[in-house]
Amino acid sequence: MIGLGMMGSALAGAYLRADHRTTVWNRSAGKADALVAQGASRADTIADAVAASDVLVACVVDYRSLYEILDPVRESLAGKVIVNLTSGVPADARGAAQWARSVGAHYLDGYLMTVPPAVGLPQTLLFYGGAKEVFDAHESTLRVLGGNSVFLGEDPGTASLYDLALLGILWSSLAGALHGFALLASEGVPAAALTPFVESWITHVVLPSIRGAAQQVDAGGYATTVSTVGLNAAGLATMVEASRSQGIRPDVMVPIRDILRERAADGHGDEALASMIEVIRTP
Amino acid sequence: MIGLGMMGSALAGAYLRADHRTTVWNRSAGKADALVAQGASRADTIADAVAASDVLVACVVDYRSLYEILDPVRESLAGKVIVNLTSGVPADARGAAQWARSVGAHYLDGYLMTVPPAVGLPQTLLFYGGAKEVFDAHESTLRVLGGNSVFLGEDPGTASLYDLALLGILWSSLAGALHGFALLASEGVPAAALTPFVESWITHVVLPSIRGAAQQVDAGGYATTVSTVGLNAAGLATMVEASRSQGIRPDVMVPIRDILRERAADGHGDEALASMIEVIRTP
Repeated sequence: MIGLGMMGSALAGAYLRADHRTTVWNRSAGKADALVAQGASRADTIADAVAASDVLVACVVDYRSLYEILDPVRESLAGKVIVNLTSGVPADARGAAQWARSVGAHYLDGYLMTVPPAVGLPQTLLFYGGAKEVFDAHESTLRVLGGNSVFLGEDPGTASLYDLALLGILWSSLAGALHGFALLASEGVPAAALTPFVESWITHVVLPSIRGAAQQVDAGGYATTVSTVGLNAAGLATMVEASRSQGIRPDVMVPIRDILRERAADGHGDEALASMIEVIRTP
Repeated sequence: MIGLGMMGSALAGAYLRADHRTTVWNRSAGKADALVAQGASRADTIADAVAASDVLVACVVDYRSLYEILDPVRESLAGKVIVNLTSGVPADARGAAQWARSVGAHYLDGYLMTVPPAVGLPQTLLFYGGAKEVFDAHESTLRVLGGNSVFLGEDPGTASLYDLALLGILWSSLAGALHGFALLASEGVPAAALTPFVESWITHVVLPSIRGAAQQVDAGGYATTVSTVGLNAAGLATMVEASRSQGIRPDVMVPIRDILRERAADGHGDEALASMIEVIRTP
């Protein structure tokens, strides 16, 4: 295990709990202490770490750190499996895959779709892209980190795209909820008053809307009889004004209003909300 | 039923299906035809409509229209119950409640949290604010429009706040999902490939995050050991850059990045994401 931040430590911990022989290394050595106390072997140098294992799981702060750590030992990487759980964008993953190939290593790019305390649970989701035969050969080892380990395809950049897409949904949904809580708070209503409704709303309205939008996006058709771009553009305009008049910042809602306005102005006011994607994907 | 747009027609249809004696009126008369064919009585004038029923359900395009319609018949409104399902902001509802009091009418402000085809279903959610005794006296009549009819309190503006809060969650979540679909589309991956993960992600990650955020917002404390403002600000910066490099507009993500940046710059980088609300609610 290369990199023992909050997430890296959780990953190493999952291997120790599953009785895998685990060697740990971190740039600042002190972070290994707790894991060593739980049975991990401490590698004093990155060269020792690489020598100790056929499968190297890396989870470091960014790709620059990854290269700073691994490039000095590139001569010893031939035949090793690098499982890279470092966050980045598709181009980062593709660059790392190419770099790994240049040093004779096998490469998988992975994304852990959870927080450190949920590492290793059966339902924990990880996305992988890269060499299928490497995923297949090490699947049981990979599943130690999360039972729901999914291989997405040979393109090492794909896992990063899925990660970004799901993170974006988390961020936007949570920002929207906080906006709602702020609206309620402006009248002294606690967030707890809304949460029972949020649960049902998300399950019965938001999720079906997203499902329906996915189908329309893939089909490229945006017919609707119920909720049009034009109606929702007006609704968003009300939302922005109401937020201001309640004394809270409408920032989170403004780009959604503007995208709908733009779509309506382009003559698509009668289409479904999903047609917003045509604005989003036109730079 | 006053107002026979898409939603008003669905409301009248629910009453007809439930065998309620229903009189319908719309500014442009043709919209009543389909409902009259289903058994509704047509009111030729708003005065006839008001005279026909003790309970007036109004669903018109905005509050200006509501006053334009009802003010000419204000003398005949004493003792009537006005159930106003017209969309607006809290101040609109409070103004309408005051106006209703001035003409001697009882007033309930309601929000139908669904699309027209779901009007009248047992699970359909409506929020009400206003006079409790009016809600109680007419509860069975109100439930015809949706089985999950919830009285929120005596403040007629509250239902509007809840409506805005839930709509904001729908809009932001859907915009976030469309952003994700656009990311995938930029590499030729269909939205359908992501949707199975979206369902599980929203259930197991997004909803618990919103629930946790609600608790922190109400408690006013934002401790975390797993996902900080600082980490997520970096994640959002990556998201914005990745979106641009994939050729899609990052607009939906930009204000979330900026709110997190602002919060981090104010010395709260170690707090949980829920602390974004402190930025949102500070104008």
